[in-house]
Amino acid sequence: MGNTFGKLFKISTFGESHGLGLGVVIDGCPAGLTIDEDFIREEMQRRKPGQSKITTQRKEEDEFQILSGVFEGKSTGTPIGMVILNTDQKSKDYSHISDKFRPSHADFTYFEKFGTRDYRGGGRSSARETAARVAAGSIAKMLLKHYGISVQAYVSQVGDLKLGKTYQELDLNKTEDNIVRCPDQETADLMIDYIDDVRKSRDTVGGIVSCVAKGVPPGIGEPVFDRLHAELGKAMLSINAVKGFEYGSGFEGVKMRGSEHNDAFYQDGDRVRTRTNHSGGIQGGISNGEDIYFNVAFKPVATIMQDQESVNESGETVTVSGKGRHDPCVVPRAVPIVEAMCALVLADYILLSRTNKI
Amino acid sequence: MGNTFGKLFKISTFGESHGLGLGVVIDGCPAGLTIDEDFIREEMQRRKPGQSKITTQRKEEDEFQILSGVFEGKSTGTPIGMVILNTDQKSKDYSHISDKFRPSHADFTYFEKFGTRDYRGGGRSSARETAARVAAGSIAKMLLKHYGISVQAYVSQVGDLKLGKTYQELDLNKTEDNIVRCPDQETADLMIDYIDDVRKSRDTVGGIVSCVAKGVPPGIGEPVFDRLHAELGKAMLSINAVKGFEYGSGFEGVKMRGSEHNDAFYQDGDRVRTRTNHSGGIQGGISNGEDIYFNVAFKPVATIMQDQESVNESGETVTVSGKGRHDPCVVPRAVPIVEAMCALVLADYILLSRTNKI
Amino acid sequence: MGNTFGKLFKISTFGESHGLGLGVVIDGCPAGLTIDEDFIREEMQRRKPGQSKITTQRKEEDEFQILSGVFEGKSTGTPIGMVILNTDQKSKDYSHISDKFRPSHADFTYFEKFGTRDYRGGGRSSARETAARVAAGSIAKMLLKHYGISVQAYVSQVGDLKLGKTYQELDLNKTEDNIVRCPDQETADLMIDYIDDVRKSRDTVGGIVSCVAKGVPPGIGEPVFDRLHAELGKAMLSINAVKGFEYGSGFEGVKMRGSEHNDAFYQDGDRVRTRTNHSGGIQGGISNGEDIYFNVAFKPVATIMQDQESVNESGETVTVSGKGRHDPCVVPRAVPIVEAMCALVLADYILLSRTNKI
Amino acid sequence: MGNTFGKLFKISTFGESHGLGLGVVIDGCPAGLTIDEDFIREEMQRRKPGQSKITTQRKEEDEFQILSGVFEGKSTGTPIGMVILNTDQKSKDYSHISDKFRPSHADFTYFEKFGTRDYRGGGRSSARETAARVAAGSIAKMLLKHYGISVQAYVSQVGDLKLGKTYQELDLNKTEDNIVRCPDQETADLMIDYIDDVRKSRDTVGGIVSCVAKGVPPGIGEPVFDRLHAELGKAMLSINAVKGFEYGSGFEGVKMRGSEHNDAFYQDGDRVRTRTNHSGGIQGGISNGEDIYFNVAFKPVATIMQDQESVNESGETVTVSGKGRHDPCVVPRAVPIVEAMCALVLADYILLSRTNKI
Repeated sequence: MGNTFGKLFKISTFGESHGLGLGVVIDGCPAGLTIDEDFIREEMQRRKPGQSKITTQRKEEDEFQILSGVFEGKSTGTPIGMVILNTDQKSKDYSHISDKFRPSHADFTYFEKFGTRDYRGGGRSSARETAARVAAGSIAKMLLKHYGISVQAYVSQVGDLKLGKTYQELDLNKTEDNIVRCPDQETADLMIDYIDDVRKSRDTVGGIVSCVAKGVPPGIGEPVFDRLHAELGKAMLSINAVKGFEYGSGFEGVKMRGSEHNDAFYQDGDRVRTRTNHSGGIQGGISNGEDIYFNVAFKPVATIMQDQESVNESGETVTVSGKGRHDPCVVPRAVPIVEAMCALVLADYILLSRTNKI
Repeated sequence: MGNTFGKLFKISTFGESHGLGLGVVIDGCPAGLTIDEDFIREEMQRRKPGQSKITTQRKEEDEFQILSGVFEGKSTGTPIGMVILNTDQKSKDYSHISDKFRPSHADFTYFEKFGTRDYRGGGRSSARETAARVAAGSIAKMLLKHYGISVQAYVSQVGDLKLGKTYQELDLNKTEDNIVRCPDQETADLMIDYIDDVRKSRDTVGGIVSCVAKGVPPGIGEPVFDRLHAELGKAMLSINAVKGFEYGSGFEGVKMRGSEHNDAFYQDGDRVRTRTNHSGGIQGGISNGEDIYFNVAFKPVATIMQDQESVNESGETVTVSGKGRHDPCVVPRAVPIVEAMCALVLADYILLSRTNKI
Repeated sequence: MGNTFGKLFKISTFGESHGLGLGVVIDGCPAGLTIDEDFIREEMQRRKPGQSKITTQRKEEDEFQILSGVFEGKSTGTPIGMVILNTDQKSKDYSHISDKFRPSHADFTYFEKFGTRDYRGGGRSSARETAARVAAGSIAKMLLKHYGISVQAYVSQVGDLKLGKTYQELDLNKTEDNIVRCPDQETADLMIDYIDDVRKSRDTVGGIVSCVAKGVPPGIGEPVFDRLHAELGKAMLSINAVKGFEYGSGFEGVKMRGSEHNDAFYQDGDRVRTRTNHSGGIQGGISNGEDIYFNVAFKPVATIMQDQESVNESGETVTVSGKGRHDPCVVPRAVPIVEAMCALVLADYILLSRTNKI
Repeated sequence: MGNTFGKLFKISTFGESHGLGLGVVIDGCPAGLTIDEDFIREEMQRRKPGQSKITTQRKEEDEFQILSGVFEGKSTGTPIGMVILNTDQKSKDYSHISDKFRPSHADFTYFEKFGTRDYRGGGRSSARETAARVAAGSIAKMLLKHYGISVQAYVSQVGDLKLGKTYQELDLNKTEDNIVRCPDQETADLMIDYIDDVRKSRDTVGGIVSCVAKGVPPGIGEPVFDRLHAELGKAMLSINAVKGFEYGSGFEGVKMRGSEHNDAFYQDGDRVRTRTNHSGGIQGGISNGEDIYFNVAFKPVATIMQDQESVNESGETVTVSGKGRHDPCVVPRAVPIVEAMCALVLADYILLSRTNKI
C-alpha cells in the first residue's frame, strides 16, 4: 500500500532500484492534452544521476517508454502507463550489505514491516523511485501549463549556507544555469564549493529546496483535511530524505503578531488581491490567487563513504562501509522532484475544483 | 470533499460553527474496544474555549452524544457516530461582516470556491470543527493505549519565546499543570505573561506545539507516498492556522553532516535500537521503534481586535473591525488537537500494518 | 469499514436500529443546490414502516434533522450532516434472541466477524439503515433534477406474479397510486392480494424492483472497473435482501444472437440514437443517452412468524420464534431505496464526468 | 479514472489493445508469498485468444514480465508491476472503422466521454484489458490457496442451452477437459456444436458463467455498502459484455417463501453450518463459511461477421462490416476472467478482515 498518490489525477508507481524496471500509471489525466515526450525527457535529465561533479557519478539513462494512454500525440483519458527499464542492473555483489542494516536507511524498518527485503541498492526505498514521479510530474506540468500555471523550484540552502533572498528578488529562469540549481550565481558558486568539500571529506550534507507556483486561480483547494497546503506537505514529505515542510511565513511566522501577519485585501481591477502574502497563496486550505510558495528541508544523504557501526539481521554488531557512487548533497537533483510533486498536487486539485458548484 | 481522513480507521467530520451542530463518524474502529466516555469528555474539555484567561472567553459546552457503534460499553466494529450540538447558536447579528472578507481568514477563498459561504463565524472553516477531531482522536487514543502507545503534545514556543529544552529533558506529565500547556513551569509563566500582553494589545501571536509518541513498535508505516511522517505532516497541516511541520532533526537537520545525522544501530537485548534519534523514530516512512517526535508551527490567529483594511463581495474597500471573544494565541488549545490528529494517524497505520505479511 | 459510498458525491452512513439514532454525512454535494426539506420528508415517508396493510405495522416516524451544509436553503459545498433519532427505542426485551442466530439473518456472520454484536433488532444489519440512504438519495435526486434527469422505480414482480409489460408500456407516474407500487393497477391488485395471503400464512415472499433513469446524457460513466452499470450493480446489491441485478437485456440477453442484440445507431436530428436498447443505455460502462433500466431481485424477508431451528452462540440447538411486526414482502418499501441508490450513483458519476477532458 | 480495483489488495491496469503494451500494478500483496510464474502463465493461456476452434483465431502470445515486487521468488510487499507487450501490433489499416461507431461497442460512448478515442481495435474498451486482470488474479489465487480457498468457474449456459445440474452435482475439476469449459462432457459437446453453428452463421451468442468459492472462512465481508456479494457483483459487472449477476438463490429466489428460503443453522462438530445454502455463503454481506456461488450473464459478442447499419462521427449513415477474427461466444474464455475477479475480491476482503477486532 501507499504507492498511489492523488484523487482524480492519480499516479501509482512501482519498481525497485535493481529489479527489471520501474514505472508509473497515471489514471485520470484528462483527454485531449498534447503530450510532449521531449519535455518528459528533459525533466528526467534534470533528475538523473551523473549529471555533474556534485551529484553521484552513477550512470543511469532513465529511458522511458509510454505504453498506453496516448494516441496520435494526445492523451486519450485512459491510463498512461510508463516504464523505465533498469539498464545498470548487472549482477552485482551485494553480499557485503545483504544482511546489514545501513544506518538511517530503510533497511531495518522494511525488514521489520515485511519480514523480508530486497537488499539490492535499497529496493523500493531507493530514491530511484522518484524517476517515476518526475515522469508523471512532467505530464502534470503540461496540464498546468495549459491552464497558465507554472511551478519552479530552486535550491535555497545547502548546509548552513543560505541564499539570503526571497523568491521575488530572484530570476527563477536562471535556476538551470548552474549545477547546484540556485538562481543566484554568486551563492551557487559558494554552494558548489561547499558540496565539493563535503564530498571530498567523504561525507554528505542537507539542504533546502524552495518552490513557487504562479498562476493558480483562486478557489483551488479543499476544506478541512485535504487543505491544499496539507496535500502539498504530504507530497513533499513523501520524497526521500525530507524532514520538514513550511509554506508562506512558515516557522518564522510563529514569531509574528496577527496585525503584521494578516494579508490585507484590496481590489486590483477585477481581481481581489492581498498587499502582503504571508499566507503563501493559500487561506483556509484554498488558493487565493497569490503565488504559492513553500520550503522543503532535506537531511544529509545517509550513505557516506565512511565506516559506521551497525547490526545485522542476526543482531550482531557489524561495520557498514561506504561503497559506490552517491550524492554528497541531494538538493540539486531534488529540484525537479519537488516540482513534479507540486505539479501533481495542483493538477489533481484543479480537477477536483471542477465539482465545487452546480 | 476533503472531510474524511484515514484509510482503515477513517473519520468524516461535518458541521459549521453556527449551524445546529457538528459531528464525526468513525468508520473502522475495531470491535471490542472499551469506550470510556469520561475520557472523551476530558479531552474535549482541554480543547474547549473559555478554559482560562489566555484563551477566548467564549463559552461553548461541547457536550457530545454517541449515537451508534458502541454497545454495552464497547465498540461493535460498526461506525461510531458522534454529535455535538451548538448551544451558543443564538440569532446573532452578522450583518457587519456578512459580505466582507476578513483578512487572512477563509472568507474570500470559500467564496471563490463555492460561489457562496456561510458567513456566520467562519462556517466550516471555523476552528470549532476541531471539536469533532478531538472527539474522534480520543477514541484513537484509547486504541493506542490498548497497544501501549502514548501521544503527548505540549507548547514549546510562543512568539519568539522558546522553550530551550528537548522533550527528553521535560516531564511531559506536567503539561496540564498550567494553562499554557508548557511542561516547564518557569517558561510557562513567561509564556502566559507574553500571551496576556499580546491580548491586551488587542493583537495575537503564533507558536509551536511539539508532540511525542512513545511505544510505537517498529514496522508501522508505508513506503513511498503514504510514509508515516508524510501522513503525520498532512494531519498537522490540516489543523487551522498551521504553517509548518518538521519531524526528527527537521529544518535544523539540513545543516548537519551525514556522519553526525546518521543514527547508528546497536543491539539492546532483543531490540534493535539507535544511539541517536535524528530520524525522529521513522526511517523510510516506517517506524523504527524509537520515539516519534515532531513540531507544528501555528501562525498568529487572524482575528484581531483592531480595524483592518479589506474588500467586500462587491469589490468595495471596507474596514473590518475586531469583535467578539477570540484567542490571542491558539497553541494552548491546539495541544489536544495535535495529539488527536497524531493518534488518528497512528491508529490508522497500526491497522494498516496488519496486512504486511502473509 | 464499508459504510461509505461514492467517489465525489460521497455518503457515509452510521447507526443501528435500536441505538440513539442513525444518520448520514454527504460530502461532495456541489454548492448552490436548493434543498427542499419537504421533498426529503416525502421520500422518507415512502420508505417508512407502517404505511399500509402489506408492510410492517411497526411505527417509526423517521424525522430527520439537517445539522450542517445547508445555509439559507441552499447547499454550501460543505458536508451535509443529517440525523434521524430513534424514537421507538424503548427498552424492549431481547432476551429471547440475544444469543440465538436467526436463520438467514446477519446475526451469525456479524458475530464471526466482530466477535460481538448488537442483538437488538439486527443492529447495523437492520434495514433501518436504509432510512439514511433515502435521506441522502433525495438530495441526489434534487441534483439530478437540476440536470433534467429522473429516476423512477416500481414493483415488477412479487413471488411468481410477474408484471407482463415493459417499462415503455407503463405510466410510471402511477406507481404511487397503490400500496404495492406497481404502476399497472390490475397487476397491483393481484400483488396486494398475493402479499396479503402470504402475510396471513405467517410467511414472506420475494420480488423484483425495476428502475428506469431518463435524461442521462451520453458520456457518463467510467471505463474498466468503475463501469456505470458495475457501480449501479454494487449499489443495488448493497441493499438488504438483494440477490441479483441485471441491466438492459440482462439474463434473457444471453439467449440472443449478436445480430438481434446489437443496437443499431442512427442519427436523430443532432443526437445519435439507437433503434433498440438492449444495452440498457450503457455501452462499455458509459451512458449512450438512451434510457438506463435494470432489475433488482429481492429474496423473501428472513423474519417469518414461524418457529425455526437454529443454534445459539454456545452451539446449542434452539428454536427461533417469529415475533414482532415485519414485512411480508419487502419490495413495496424497497422502491424508494432502489431509486435513492440509483440517484446516488448517477449524481456521483455526473460529477466524475466533469474531469473527462481538458 | 476507474482503472483501479480493490481496497487493500489493489490492482491498477493500463493499456490498449493496439498500443505498445498493457499491464497491471498490484499494490498490497502481503510479503512472503511464493510467486509461481508458471501458474501465472497457465492462467493466461486459459484466457488467450486462438486456443480452440470455438474462440477467436487471433493469435496473441500474452507473454508477461514481472518488473518489480518479487525478489528471490517471493513477494516483498512492494508493488508487483507486470507488463504484457503487444506483439500483434502491426500497422493495420483501421480506416474502414476509424470514424464509425460499431453497434453495441463502446466507440460512441468513449467518443462522447473523452471527445476522442483510440479506434484501433477498441482501444481501452477491448477485452484484451482482461489479460492484465488474469495476471493479477493468478497472484490473488496463490494468496487464497495459501489460506485454503479455491475458486472455480465453468460455463453453465450457452444461448438457450442450459446445463441442468447444480455445481454440487458436477466434478469441477473436469472443467478444463473440454474447450467450452463445461464440466459435464455431454452438455459440453452440445455447447461446442451450438457455438460452432453460430460461428458458421457469422453471428454470436451469449452465455452464463457460474463460479464457486470454497473454503472461505466465516466472517469475511463488510457491512452496508461494501457487502462481499456487492463487491463480487461489481467485479463481475466490470467484465466486458456482462449484463447480470446473481448469487445464491438469485433471481429464482424471489419466487420462494421465507420458510423455504431460510437456511436453518445447525452445529456440525465445532462449526456452525446451514442445512441449505440459498444464501450462497453470504449473509448480511459477510461469509458464513458455506460455499459462495454465483452466476454471471454475458451478452452475445457485439462484433459479428455481418453488415450493420450505423452512423459515423459526422452523423452520416454508414455500414459497418464484420472483419477480423472474433469470438462467436465469449464464455469459454471468460471462465478464467471470472475466477480472477472473484479471487481478487476475496484476497482483498481476507486482508480487510484482519482489522475487524482489537
